[in-house]
Order: sequence, then structure tokens, then C-alpha cells
Amino acid sequence: MAVISLTTDFGLKDGFIGTMKGVIWGIAPEVQIADITHDIPPQDIMAGAIALWRAAPFFPAGTVHIAVVDPGVGTSRRPMGARLGYQFFVLPDNGLLTPLILDAEAAGLPIEYVHLENREYWLPRTSSTFHGRDIFAPVGAHLANGVPLYNLGPHFQNPVRLKMLCPEAIPGGWRAHIKVIDVFGNLTTDLRADQITGPGKAIVHVLGKEITGLVDSYGYRQPGDVVALIDSENYLEIAVVNGSAARLLGAKVGDAVEVLSRED
Amino acid sequence: MAVISLTTDFGLKDGFIGTMKGVIWGIAPEVQIADITHDIPPQDIMAGAIALWRAAPFFPAGTVHIAVVDPGVGTSRRPMGARLGYQFFVLPDNGLLTPLILDAEAAGLPIEYVHLENREYWLPRTSSTFHGRDIFAPVGAHLANGVPLYNLGPHFQNPVRLKMLCPEAIPGGWRAHIKVIDVFGNLTTDLRADQITGPGKAIVHVLGKEITGLVDSYGYRQPGDVVALIDSENYLEIAVVNGSAARLLGAKVGDAVEVLSRED
Amino acid sequence: MAVISLTTDFGLKDGFIGTMKGVIWGIAPEVQIADITHDIPPQDIMAGAIALWRAAPFFPAGTVHIAVVDPGVGTSRRPMGARLGYQFFVLPDNGLLTPLILDAEAAGLPIEYVHLENREYWLPRTSSTFHGRDIFAPVGAHLANGVPLYNLGPHFQNPVRLKMLCPEAIPGGWRAHIKVIDVFGNLTTDLRADQITGPGKAIVHVLGKEITGLVDSYGYRQPGDVVALIDSENYLEIAVVNGSAARLLGAKVGDAVEVLSRED
Repeated sequence: MAVISLTTDFGLKDGFIGTMKGVIWGIAPEVQIADITHDIPPQDIMAGAIALWRAAPFFPAGTVHIAVVDPGVGTSRRPMGARLGYQFFVLPDNGLLTPLILDAEAAGLPIEYVHLENREYWLPRTSSTFHGRDIFAPVGAHLANGVPLYNLGPHFQNPVRLKMLCPEAIPGGWRAHIKVIDVFGNLTTDLRADQITGPGKAIVHVLGKEITGLVDSYGYRQPGDVVALIDSENYLEIAVVNGSAARLLGAKVGDAVEVLSRED
Repeated sequence: MAVISLTTDFGLKDGFIGTMKGVIWGIAPEVQIADITHDIPPQDIMAGAIALWRAAPFFPAGTVHIAVVDPGVGTSRRPMGARLGYQFFVLPDNGLLTPLILDAEAAGLPIEYVHLENREYWLPRTSSTFHGRDIFAPVGAHLANGVPLYNLGPHFQNPVRLKMLCPEAIPGGWRAHIKVIDVFGNLTTDLRADQITGPGKAIVHVLGKEITGLVDSYGYRQPGDVVALIDSENYLEIAVVNGSAARLLGAKVGDAVEVLSRED
Repeated sequence: MAVISLTTDFGLKDGFIGTMKGVIWGIAPEVQIADITHDIPPQDIMAGAIALWRAAPFFPAGTVHIAVVDPGVGTSRRPMGARLGYQFFVLPDNGLLTPLILDAEAAGLPIEYVHLENREYWLPRTSSTFHGRDIFAPVGAHLANGVPLYNLGPHFQNPVRLKMLCPEAIPGGWRAHIKVIDVFGNLTTDLRADQITGPGKAIVHVLGKEITGLVDSYGYRQPGDVVALIDSENYLEIAVVNGSAARLLGAKVGDAVEVLSRED
């Protein structure tokens, strides 16, 4: 039984997601559907791209990921399908896929892009404001049913790419950035664990705080302590034990985090 | 595999919806369940009716829609089952179905109503405050399993109907109303696209703003512009490009929107 | 088709729950997954325990309940599996299961606990901060696939137990407590219906209000009235008809509710 995931900025209040599921199950009655998140801030393509990038690798081979953060809906921006390795994606060509493309390229995976032009796989009537329902949901359902990607439209190269922040080397270490703030107020950065030399010796500067050394998990320090650790995706994270680092530090996405190797 | 949809004012915080799914899958283990929305404002039957009406037509034939916005739970208000065309509904008889009934009548679809009296299809013990779990979920699951509607209780006529606002003709056009405000702050009205003569010439007055002509989609104007367009259900919508018309205009459901045909 | 339920404090914003579903369906492609709630206040084990306890009894035999409210993630706190009667549980050993254990013991059900030590049923790589994804989701999926509990790790006795509030007998009645405040602002207490003698004669004191007698449901009084009734789990509840008792009374979890039998 195939799996479809959904990532949008539609929220859950208005019934848009339930409607997309109705469309999907009308075409692919047996498919499993997992909501990744529908709480992407409105039109925040970067936030959508990061959410999709964090979750997609944990889905089984053959999963079809439908992602819709789409300020250009109804204009000439391209609806696209993609294959990255053994996973499929259906989304507007506006950069939503950038971090997953970068990883797929780095890993040398097979990559394919098609322009969704074949209206045979859309709803019969399409609106100009809800392509999630009218194009992406039905195309994703047909993909999950086994329709080959090349049936959905012509191949193309060079999808739109977001400019991603990345850590800059500085003397003795890195200037990284806060990439995601989660519901607990934990701050995930863009610095990979393997970029930190001697984690026990790392000194982290963030928003006026200095943290010495990394801990293995939250529970090794006292409630209220500010700690640095490696997160579940293998990136540097700043947290407050049983509290919110975002609130305590007044952090926001993009803020700088400096990581230095202690001399001693 | 049948589909069940759920529309309630129960929210997602308290586990009520998970509990209903446990009951449903205990009876119909293979059924797919789509949440339409659980964020209907508490006891707002009209908002529930509109949410259900917008989503239901996109579900496959045979879907069973369970809807619970039920201030009268545990009193003499009737629990009802209904068939409108090829879709089924299980809900309190308090007007939740009104807009779908009006459309089904206009389309000449087969219509049937039953009073859910047959306790054989309820949970063995029913509370007086959670009929979503004790009556509507199990009855919906049995319907999805193929139990005929007439087994669930005796037929009746004339379910409770809400008084729906509708656009009034005024000299040169229509006085319509804001019907739904979505998560983006877009304002859907009750005026159908086919009621607007010469969309390019329409002049829209809403909360002190005048909008001239309709656009095809948001992306054809600049961020911050107030635009009028046809929404994904084919009604007139007022929006702010990449922004919130609700916030900018201070709009609320029921506010007037005048649409005039420009003379030139 | 087996059912898995999920109860966490992860929220829906960050994609954690979607990721767990991806992991589960990679292992058990046909399983149904019901979200009980993901809005447990961060690290509030008691609130998680109560939410799970309220919903679990309505799930079919064989359901696997995964619950993650886990301030000790990555420390020496034990990940555990359990069987209580015909339902299974996968969660940290921190008290989350206490109220269900108490009920299972009172009912004389078969009870089994195992320490999840067998890494064969975990994800190949485990982080120290997201055991929901790396341990509990895959173990739950394997259980749903029919792997026996004793394969997951060695048996143990005496899981961690929370100290649960319970009603105290006072002259002429009970001093009970507010246990749950739901989305409607209804106040569920820890006093069972069968502990109230002569419901018609009960006098309820809560936060300065006196309520005389219980009603059968909300709709038997006028909007705005404060009423006492028996809730859908068979406990005493305080509510405001079509309103919020929590807001009107300024109630919080743990507040006292005195129930006296009227002399007359």
C-alpha cells in the first residue's frame, strides 16, 4: 500500500486538507496519507522546504510527497513532479524542493523532473486558486497508483532553487545559523555534527550566551539550563532543559550561532 | 475501501477525535478516515454547515460524512442519517446539512432521511454528552460497512433547516455577504461567479474599499493589493495578495459586499 | 488491520508526527493510525497519562498505543512495552501509563511489562532526542505486525507510577478535584458517578458557586447556566451551557470541587 505525505501552509481550520484527502481517496482508495505539517507560515516557501526536507527521508521508498506552499498559484509558475532516488514529489516549481535536491545531488541519486502538463491526471475542472486540490492531489494519487512520472508531462532541467543559508568558516570554528525553531522552543542550526571538532571542547555563542561543551541529551542537565547538543537529524541544537530556548534567548530563524574549538 | 469524513467543533486537544476513530475502526477496520475540520467555533452550526458543504462534493461516491456540532446533545433533538445523491451523512438534526440539502434539491438528486433510533448500531452504553463517540461514529462505521440506511431507523421528512443568507438583487448588481474567512484571511462571499455580469467590468465595494474588475489569481497583482477573484468553489472572493484581507479590512462573516456592473 | 494510536506533546507544527507515521508505514504498511492528541503541554506527563487513559478503552482489542511525553529522553529512563488486557502500549517508563495500570489492576486483567532493549526493532540509527521516531514508532509498528511483546526485551515489574489525586471523603460527601479542562471549557472531576448518592440531591461547591442537583445534559438549562452533570466517561462534570465553565469560574486543573448530599 503506497504512502502519500502532505505538507502545506493551509492550516487545518478550513477543510482544505480533508478535501484533498477526499480527492486522493477517490482516485487511490487504498493509499495511506500522512500529514507532515499544515502550519507552515503563509507563503513561507523556505519554511516549507525545510519541513519537507526533515521528514521525507523517514518515509518508505515509493512515497509520494505532495507539498503546497504556493504564492504563485494560478500564474505561470510551473506545477512539477520529481523523483529523487526512490521518493516522488508533486509541488509547485518555486524552490520548495531545494534542500532535498541538494542532498540527492550530493548522494548521487537518480533525479528526474517533469512539468505537470497532462490534464488527464488533474480534476476535470481546475480553479485558479486551489491547485492543491485540483492538480497536486489528483496527480499525487495517480503516481501512488503507479502511473509513471513521464506520463504526467514533459521532462525539464533546472527547477527553481532557493538560496539556502549555510555555515561560514571563521577563525577557529564556524558561524552557523538558527534554521528551525520547534514547538518546544529548541533551536536547530545548519551546522552538521561532523563539522564540530571535539564536541567536548566546543564553545557555542548564541544571542549573548556562551555554552561550553555539548551534552548527550536534555536530561543530563538541570531544568532551566541552556545546553548545546546534536539533534535528531544530526545537526547542532541549542535547547533549554524542560524550557524554551526560543523564549529565553529571544531567538528567531536566521540568528547567528558561533561555534569555536576551545584551545587548551 | 469506504471513506468516512469527520467535521466537528471538538478541537484536537482533548482526544475526542482519536476516540471516535478508535470506535470506527473497531467496527469498520478498513475504512479510510479524513478529518475535514475540528476547528468549527464551539456550537456554531452555521460554520459547521458551510465547512461540510464546501468539502463534501470532493469526496468519492459512497463516502459517509459524520458531522457533530451539537449544542442539543442529550436532549430530544433527533440524531439523523441522510442520503443525498451518492453520499451519506450522519449528524444531529439541527440544520448542519442545510446547504447540502439545498444543492441536492436543486440538482434533483435522490434524498432520504432517517431518524437514528436503532440502538443495535450504537455503542452498548451511550452517554448523554458525547454522541459523536456513542452514536454518530458507530452508526457511520456500520453505514460504511454496507448496512442500509433504512436499517438505522424510520424515515422522516423535513429535517431542521438553517436560514441561509443569500445575495439580494440591488439596482445594477448584488448585495452579497462574506460567508467564510479562511486561514489566509481571504473572504469568500455568497455570490456565484455566474451571477456577475462582465467580470472585467465588475465594481466591488467592501468595507470602504472599491475594487475594479476581477483578476485571474493572486499572483497577477503586487503583494499588498486588494483584489477580487473567483474562488475555488466558483464564488466571488476578496483577497490581499500575500496578505490577509480579513485583517486589512477588519472583515467578519456576514459583512456586506456590493457588486455593481460598471457602466461604460 | 491493526490500529496504532499516537499521544504526544510534539504538536503538529514541526512534522514530528508525520515523520513517525512514515517510519510506522515503512514497517507496517497496512496499519491504521489514529492521533489521540499531540497537544499535551510540553513535558506534562500527568496530562498525557489522563488523555491516554480517557481514549484507550474505546479502541479495538489488539490496538498498539504509542505515547511520548518524555522529558528524560536519551537518559537512563527505560523505554517500555506493556500489555494491559487486550491492548498494547509503547512509551517511556515515566508514569504515563499509571491510570490505565490502576484500572487494569482493579479489573484483574492480564498485565505484562517489558524493557525495550532489543535494538533489532529500533531504527538502525537512533538519536538521543527523538525516541518517538527512532524507538517507539518502529517498536509499535513491529508489535502491530504481530511481533510478540517478549521479543522486544526482558520482562520487568513495577514501572514508575505517578501519584494520582483522588477524591477525599468529607462529612456528608466528597472533596474532589478538577482533572481535565476540555476545549469547550467543561471541567471533568475525579469523582465517579457511582460515588454520588442521590444525584438529584447533590450540592456541588466549586470556586464560590453552588450548584443544586445534576442535569441530564447541557440542553436542559439555559445558555449561560452553570450546571453539574455526569460526563461521557461517567465522572462528575461542571459546565456552562453553550459557554465555558473554565473561563467563567477561572478554573484550573487540581482545583477543589465539593459534593455534598442535601439533607431534606
